[in-house]
Amino acid sequence: MTLSPTTRSTLGRKPDRAATDPAELHALLDEGLVCHVGFVRDGAPVVLPTAYGRAGDTLYLHGSTGAGWLRADELPCSVAVTQLDGIVHARAVMNFSMNYRSAVVHGTARRVTDPAEKWDGLRAIVEHLTPGAWDHARQPDRRELAATALFALDLTEASVKRRSGPPSDDAPDVEADLAWCGVVPVRTVFDAPQPAPDLPEHHVLPAHLGAADHRSG
Amino acid sequence: MTLSPTTRSTLGRKPDRAATDPAELHALLDEGLVCHVGFVRDGAPVVLPTAYGRAGDTLYLHGSTGAGWLRADELPCSVAVTQLDGIVHARAVMNFSMNYRSAVVHGTARRVTDPAEKWDGLRAIVEHLTPGAWDHARQPDRRELAATALFALDLTEASVKRRSGPPSDDAPDVEADLAWCGVVPVRTVFDAPQPAPDLPEHHVLPAHLGAADHRSG
Repeated sequence: MTLSPTTRSTLGRKPDRAATDPAELHALLDEGLVCHVGFVRDGAPVVLPTAYGRAGDTLYLHGSTGAGWLRADELPCSVAVTQLDGIVHARAVMNFSMNYRSAVVHGTARRVTDPAEKWDGLRAIVEHLTPGAWDHARQPDRRELAATALFALDLTEASVKRRSGPPSDDAPDVEADLAWCGVVPVRTVFDAPQPAPDLPEHHVLPAHLGAADHRSG
Repeated sequence: MTLSPTTRSTLGRKPDRAATDPAELHALLDEGLVCHVGFVRDGAPVVLPTAYGRAGDTLYLHGSTGAGWLRADELPCSVAVTQLDGIVHARAVMNFSMNYRSAVVHGTARRVTDPAEKWDGLRAIVEHLTPGAWDHARQPDRRELAATALFALDLTEASVKRRSGPPSDDAPDVEADLAWCGVVPVRTVFDAPQPAPDLPEHHVLPAHLGAADHRSG
């Protein structure tokens, strides 16, 4: 499998920033926490942030069965996951940029009705938030499953785009030496877990939350 | 002005998470760095991450005049900016959540042709990346201006949604005391600026980049 097999997912601009390795797509989706889902409602575009999970070559989205965007059985959509890595300061303001990695998936998400796949997809979403959480907390009961819609989106029509490294300025600007330039790195960090106010004191931090930055490495 | 004046920007789910204060919208847009723009191309939704800026009640987007999504004079779109604040661990996996603040703006972005507004809009985008950058680096020349498309989107049709605080579990799960629960805080941090490899050594860090976390406070 290579990414970008269709016109929609083939980059028109700056194709040197495109990646075609599914492993890079998977790693980026696994690293991100929030995706932005775009869909069409009454002819107009709508973008919403939401959680997601991945299992193999499938992306899972979920929500309340009462949510308007999850009422149909099929949802044509575009899903983006973006990780910001730095602010790129150039010698010319029009060469300012960002270092980032971004995945965009296109397709038609389908409502998952098979109980086994629904279980696994919900598990993928929770485990994506924090590996180990699914087995630590209470798993869904019949009522919760009925109240939750799960949608599956194939990752076959996807593109990864990224920029890294220093600014790119034109030679005259470099020679003129007219400004500071470089990169301000940007990172997402996880601080020490804060127990809920009503958590009984006998609780110790469970193993899957044992490291402050438990999602790294 | 209050936010959410239309059906499309009125929250259907969990209205207690909605904000109606324009100051909160502005603060969130100013804090974020990347937005996700949703639009319709050939009848299908597309989401792209991009930079943006704000001036008053207008959001500015820009890109190369060669970019496909910026070729029309009007762009019906939905723009989301999301800041993640924490991962919410509950006693039940279906109550896992995220603490976040999210702005979604709907409308039709218009191509900016007035030279003065174009200058100010591009300035807003660069200054949004790092205040002080516009006056430090070389400002756009005629060729760069001609190669760059700027679009303006009114902030009048917008909603802000957020969640904060500890998990919300049902009373039986709380009484059963069956899992650790709490919040893992998530933050975006800015590391020390890294000069470009070809930056002459005589440069010192300019004042607008003087603090490691220059965007805070």
